[in-house]
Amino acid sequence: MKPISSSRVPSTPIFPTRRNVLRAAGGGILAASLGVPAWSLAQQAAGAAGDRKLGFAIVGIGSLSMNQILPALAKTRHCYAAAIVSGHPDKAKAQAEKHGIDPKNIYNYENYDSIKDNPAIQAVYVVLPNAMHAEYTVRGAKAGKHVLTEKPMEVTSAKCREMIEACRTAGKKLMVAYRLRYEPNNMALIDTVQKKVCGDLKIIEAGAGFMIGDPNQWRLEHSLSGGGCLMDIGVYALNASRYISREEPVEVSAFTHRTNGEPRFADPYVEEHCNFQLRFPSGVLASCASSYSTSLNRFRADCTKGWAEVEPALSYKGVKFRYDDRKGDPKTPDVGSVDHFATEMDHFAECVANDKEPRTPGEEGLKDLLVIESIYEAAESGKTVKVHGM
Amino acid sequence: MKPISSSRVPSTPIFPTRRNVLRAAGGGILAASLGVPAWSLAQQAAGAAGDRKLGFAIVGIGSLSMNQILPALAKTRHCYAAAIVSGHPDKAKAQAEKHGIDPKNIYNYENYDSIKDNPAIQAVYVVLPNAMHAEYTVRGAKAGKHVLTEKPMEVTSAKCREMIEACRTAGKKLMVAYRLRYEPNNMALIDTVQKKVCGDLKIIEAGAGFMIGDPNQWRLEHSLSGGGCLMDIGVYALNASRYISREEPVEVSAFTHRTNGEPRFADPYVEEHCNFQLRFPSGVLASCASSYSTSLNRFRADCTKGWAEVEPALSYKGVKFRYDDRKGDPKTPDVGSVDHFATEMDHFAECVANDKEPRTPGEEGLKDLLVIESIYEAAESGKTVKVHGM
Repeated sequence: MKPISSSRVPSTPIFPTRRNVLRAAGGGILAASLGVPAWSLAQQAAGAAGDRKLGFAIVGIGSLSMNQILPALAKTRHCYAAAIVSGHPDKAKAQAEKHGIDPKNIYNYENYDSIKDNPAIQAVYVVLPNAMHAEYTVRGAKAGKHVLTEKPMEVTSAKCREMIEACRTAGKKLMVAYRLRYEPNNMALIDTVQKKVCGDLKIIEAGAGFMIGDPNQWRLEHSLSGGGCLMDIGVYALNASRYISREEPVEVSAFTHRTNGEPRFADPYVEEHCNFQLRFPSGVLASCASSYSTSLNRFRADCTKGWAEVEPALSYKGVKFRYDDRKGDPKTPDVGSVDHFATEMDHFAECVANDKEPRTPGEEGLKDLLVIESIYEAAESGKTVKVHGM
Repeated sequence: MKPISSSRVPSTPIFPTRRNVLRAAGGGILAASLGVPAWSLAQQAAGAAGDRKLGFAIVGIGSLSMNQILPALAKTRHCYAAAIVSGHPDKAKAQAEKHGIDPKNIYNYENYDSIKDNPAIQAVYVVLPNAMHAEYTVRGAKAGKHVLTEKPMEVTSAKCREMIEACRTAGKKLMVAYRLRYEPNNMALIDTVQKKVCGDLKIIEAGAGFMIGDPNQWRLEHSLSGGGCLMDIGVYALNASRYISREEPVEVSAFTHRTNGEPRFADPYVEEHCNFQLRFPSGVLASCASSYSTSLNRFRADCTKGWAEVEPALSYKGVKFRYDDRKGDPKTPDVGSVDHFATEMDHFAECVANDKEPRTPGEEGLKDLLVIESIYEAAESGKTVKVHGM
């Protein structure tokens, strides 16, 4: 597949797009009433737009894919849902139908490698349990596809390095789906701290947590998740501490906790809470909390002349930036809101089109895993741990 | 001095009080215009109210005494400013005049012990640098006076124990001036968590910090302060974590930081930041930040079904409680506001009158010092430290 060149990605689509055609046709319902399958209209639209749009194979169709990523694809400007990879044929078929994907483009985990022969697929978006990211990234790269993978990148730094190496060798882009790096309120927070609007950054407070439900989900099984709340949601607080400070932590300390007899935390390596501290070279300290049993949803930069924060910080909708520079009341500028997933996928498509490094490349995911490994080591050893390998 | 009996502390004063008399007389200015010193009116009022009011000697007249405590005494119902102990005769004289204190009741650090012969003084309020609290508490108790001391109680747990022992031996009350324990918004937070209005407590986030000014102040000299931001302001975050959880921490980890070349942090034992984590027996974890170079002012209880917080948490005015039980919007009930110092002094007077244990006795201050010692040990050793001696 030849890369999409930048000149071929107009900021305003000039040809009919899949979305526009589907909209005009009233989507799948009207398509069905016309006696043609929705995917054929979609494919026709994609064809009409030519190689302007990046065709994604969505690998894994759990709730994130079904509720966020597949719907978000319809809101992108430079991408479309080209294929589904799933171990559940019926579910895959239903989702393909819903999102206008040619049923021929449904793959399973066995025949996944044959996507190499499908030119409609230029990229894979790996939305599998954490411990499967490396395998499906490496196989995707070997199949000649660019790779966008969910966070955390994998469950060990070694597996992150394998992923980076595989994509490098294949000459394909690799990006970690850190959606908040494409979210305007979080970006405004970064910008405000960088410009020292509230003076010098001194302390970061970052909390990320939610009440986890179904005790049988993969997140609560160490062999699939690689850990507990730190891996799944605490990684947002860690990543935020790094993007707010624009530094790499040198030391960490941590506490974890699991409530005895709680079925959700039966796996001894899946923590319910993980609170951790980071020390940055400048002296900035970050105080971070993560949990699977309470909601935590704020990133705050405490500065010498005020503060800046996002709260909620990581919700899919309604993220809100505010700051106080001690010139009048705290300010809550409207910096806009986007579909995080659509925006990150469009960024990825632009990087592919223009042969640019994504804002959150594999190396970014690797750095978080290096810190996560140090955090778990600190929690287990009861010692402050120096972060190595950055 | 005989203790003030409970029956003699009516909730509504029925006799003229010093404050009422001074108000009626237009305070010191009108008193002066009448050709009588303000203190004589005040003393007359105190006399009229008899032994109903607790006469305080304020020991140390720095900015806290001058700007908060002495003005607060005029707002109490059960106390009055009886004496001043100071090393600065001119300053003492001016403050005595301002607050209607008989100039005969001005003491210095040498003749402090002679307060034992002054029946107008029933209690001392020690508002000296931290490392002087034990000496002036012990001498106060030996002089037969009840003791209210500022936080932190002292600079070591050993000195706290000496203070407790001295007051026990003398049969006098000892209370630590944890003003937030007498502040209705903080009390509402405690109550809300205790009643599980937002479900079970899981995580505590507590920040306490401010931008410290004058590099020559005692707070920045280890021999007087016993430490940096943790001792002075971080103790609020620690105390809050304990009163929110109603548990004693069993383990701590900590990071400290001093900016090189910053004159305010020239003393190697006075930290600019101290972030610390606490583990409670129930599994609740507290994530705490303290600083002398940024404002931190929030205590938050993150629970299974919502959250409750105070923000600002520790300002002298405007402390605000709110909570979210996920039944409609977050709630901001008006639980009232008080002068923290007046309320704590009245509580102390009531404990003296009724021979009751104060809400924040010496043992409460000792517990914080035990944890503080563990926090410094953790920061220095780079190890999680178990809290001993509780």
